[in-house]
Amino acid sequence: MSLDAVLNRIDETLPQSLDRLMELLRIPSISTDPAYKADCARTADVLAADLATLGFDARAAQTPGHPMVVAHGGEGKRHILFYGHYDVQPVDPLELWDRPPFDPEVQDTPKGRVIRARGASDDKGQLMTFIEACRAWKHVHGTLPGKLTIFLEGEEESSSPSLIPFLKENREELSCDLALICDTGLFEGATPAITTMLRGMAKVEFTIRAANRDLHSGMYGGLAQNPLHLMSRILAGLHDSQGRVQVPGFYDDVDELPDTLRQQWQALAFDHARYLGDVGLSVPAGEQDRTPLEKIWSRPTAEVNGMWGGYTGAGFKTVLPSEAHAKVSFRLVSRQDPEKIADAFKTWAAAQLPADCELVMDGDGEGGSPASVMEITDPAFEAARQALTEEWGRPAAFVGAGGSIPVAGYFKSILGMDAMLIGFGRDDDQIHSPNEKYNLESFHKGIRSWARILARIA
Amino acid sequence: MSLDAVLNRIDETLPQSLDRLMELLRIPSISTDPAYKADCARTADVLAADLATLGFDARAAQTPGHPMVVAHGGEGKRHILFYGHYDVQPVDPLELWDRPPFDPEVQDTPKGRVIRARGASDDKGQLMTFIEACRAWKHVHGTLPGKLTIFLEGEEESSSPSLIPFLKENREELSCDLALICDTGLFEGATPAITTMLRGMAKVEFTIRAANRDLHSGMYGGLAQNPLHLMSRILAGLHDSQGRVQVPGFYDDVDELPDTLRQQWQALAFDHARYLGDVGLSVPAGEQDRTPLEKIWSRPTAEVNGMWGGYTGAGFKTVLPSEAHAKVSFRLVSRQDPEKIADAFKTWAAAQLPADCELVMDGDGEGGSPASVMEITDPAFEAARQALTEEWGRPAAFVGAGGSIPVAGYFKSILGMDAMLIGFGRDDDQIHSPNEKYNLESFHKGIRSWARILARIA
Repeated sequence: MSLDAVLNRIDETLPQSLDRLMELLRIPSISTDPAYKADCARTADVLAADLATLGFDARAAQTPGHPMVVAHGGEGKRHILFYGHYDVQPVDPLELWDRPPFDPEVQDTPKGRVIRARGASDDKGQLMTFIEACRAWKHVHGTLPGKLTIFLEGEEESSSPSLIPFLKENREELSCDLALICDTGLFEGATPAITTMLRGMAKVEFTIRAANRDLHSGMYGGLAQNPLHLMSRILAGLHDSQGRVQVPGFYDDVDELPDTLRQQWQALAFDHARYLGDVGLSVPAGEQDRTPLEKIWSRPTAEVNGMWGGYTGAGFKTVLPSEAHAKVSFRLVSRQDPEKIADAFKTWAAAQLPADCELVMDGDGEGGSPASVMEITDPAFEAARQALTEEWGRPAAFVGAGGSIPVAGYFKSILGMDAMLIGFGRDDDQIHSPNEKYNLESFHKGIRSWARILARIA
Repeated sequence: MSLDAVLNRIDETLPQSLDRLMELLRIPSISTDPAYKADCARTADVLAADLATLGFDARAAQTPGHPMVVAHGGEGKRHILFYGHYDVQPVDPLELWDRPPFDPEVQDTPKGRVIRARGASDDKGQLMTFIEACRAWKHVHGTLPGKLTIFLEGEEESSSPSLIPFLKENREELSCDLALICDTGLFEGATPAITTMLRGMAKVEFTIRAANRDLHSGMYGGLAQNPLHLMSRILAGLHDSQGRVQVPGFYDDVDELPDTLRQQWQALAFDHARYLGDVGLSVPAGEQDRTPLEKIWSRPTAEVNGMWGGYTGAGFKTVLPSEAHAKVSFRLVSRQDPEKIADAFKTWAAAQLPADCELVMDGDGEGGSPASVMEITDPAFEAARQALTEEWGRPAAFVGAGGSIPVAGYFKSILGMDAMLIGFGRDDDQIHSPNEKYNLESFHKGIRSWARILARIA
């Protein structure tokens, strides 16, 4: 069977695949630092040139920031877009690195053989799994594994300023039937996973104003409103004793988890004790009638991210401040609307204030995004899950992501396509930190995974 | 009658009394600024020399900081100490003054004739009321009005660093039967008042620790403890819906107001709407079953003076912080013990935390002080009240003070004597602010008040 030939080719040429990755890792494509602008451009050029050798019609497309690599090639029953990013995080603090971050090395470690370098896992190693899969396929079959568009961004680590305009300007060229995004990891570092739900976000910044100036607690304490008390009461009332958010209507647009996903998640046997233990905690917070995975993947949350007011310096100042401040964010799921949630919070909070105090919204009120929930009834999802299960020898799962991966939302809202987020990173890859690594197994089996997936869905 | 002669003498020599005050106001005795050290010393010397002319055995006693003026003189059935302070607040912002702060002037204003200068009210004008009363008495009778010790501090506006050591070192010399302190004001700027209750203070600074590092709200939101939520719940639970403090045992050592004081306070007809309106508020907070004056004078309070945690900069960072911080102070009354109250709070707050979080005390744990409650059964108190009532033509009252006046506490704890706090300042004197003033009426009737009081009690 032809897939076996591709997999064999991948195994035989792994050293060459690794060499190409090492070459890419040597370019310090730090997108946040203007000093590395030429390096980012060179990385895009190297990738476009490499894709051209595989038969792609490839280019490094200019933007106001760093270039996007866009490549089209192959034929197939459905048009598939692959997304990765070639830029990397800054490397400081440099003194905590065991070797130069852009001088990659394969090392034997207690965690297996790893590729050590900035970007090894996030995201050069991951994006190369897809390109190497295409290369092996092309060698065996003489053609690419399907009708493909490869789209590599160079600003993911610097908030993607050019991404939305670029997607809008090139909507027709980039709109495909399905997107594959390789920037995530294995579940608990071992189980292959396809992320199909990403939580959205609503944000509220606000101030509670009481007296028109700071008051002396001796003269006014016990008689005048203290906005820190009012703020505490509002934030304390955000959840009931069972962890449910108390803002009216908050759960109106929240769907229950489908049974198929519930079963898959149960089968994952998530070790939440270890997950919390890693950060020094042991008692699960949040909704008491929900499983830990539901809490972080499929349930909405309200979290205070910052609050402050009064005297915060050394020593004491017995002041009743005139103002108290807070920043609250909501992770959203299902059909929850960011604007509606923010408005509901505002109304609910303001109604709790006495007549002589007021709630004022701060910030620009922007930055909200709805949840991304993929249509897993598309057979491609189940096909990819089967492919991953075969490659990794354990049942792959559809999982959620507690945080947002903005590009998946943009693909949906701007290009109208769902995305499968599949990646091979591990929790201990130390992305964004010193001594980033990517397991050689992730790289090798990652390439093989894409070959299997493309064989089934493209 | 001889008192009438003294009062006449006071009226006749008011211009000379005013000249002496003006002379004192011309010396910039700013105690916080080392540049004015010589001016402080000169003020002390001028005062000691002036007291010597009245027959006092007077000296400017050196301290590690600014000198104390100590003067003894006269004979009488009880030994009375008078306290005032000759140092003044800094003058910045200087550009907001209508004239040089140390070039005093008598001005006609819509609020009456006023003496405009830094220190006019706080406290040079006030301390001179007592000295001028002694001067007039001496002129009429040839003797001082009683057995007096005058004790004038030069560091009141810079936290009195030398006061406690000086009182301890000169305990025998300074211990009298009763103290008079002239550094307060008329009630609502019109009613003569003797402050007989001063609230004490307990302070608690603490941190709630949850995870061992800041967490990403996408990865941990809804599952991990957020210390800002825990802090909000603790602080929100500090009071019930009726404003009562919920720390167990908090009210154990709180006495009810004696009926005599309750009646006097009712008669004051305190305009709390104006008091709150001055700072932009209208709804009384605090204990709902207590009068406004009780709330600020005779009831204990718990106030959050500062709280902070998480991201407080511009924009958003969706973090679950590892720590939350707060500073809480308690105004104490009656027999409440600062240490006991702080401990009770700590125990109560810590008991509300889940097992994986902890409460850690910050700060040095110092700075607490019990309330000062004077023994108003001493006939001198009622005698002074009658004297003030006669002079001002309206019933004088025993009042409370919401804040602490530390020297009154030190007189009690170190010298074992109660104090009567009597002063003639008005709420609009702008002490500590630009354009400080003292009404000529306060100065004139203040001098007459002391003559009347000393005639009755010394």
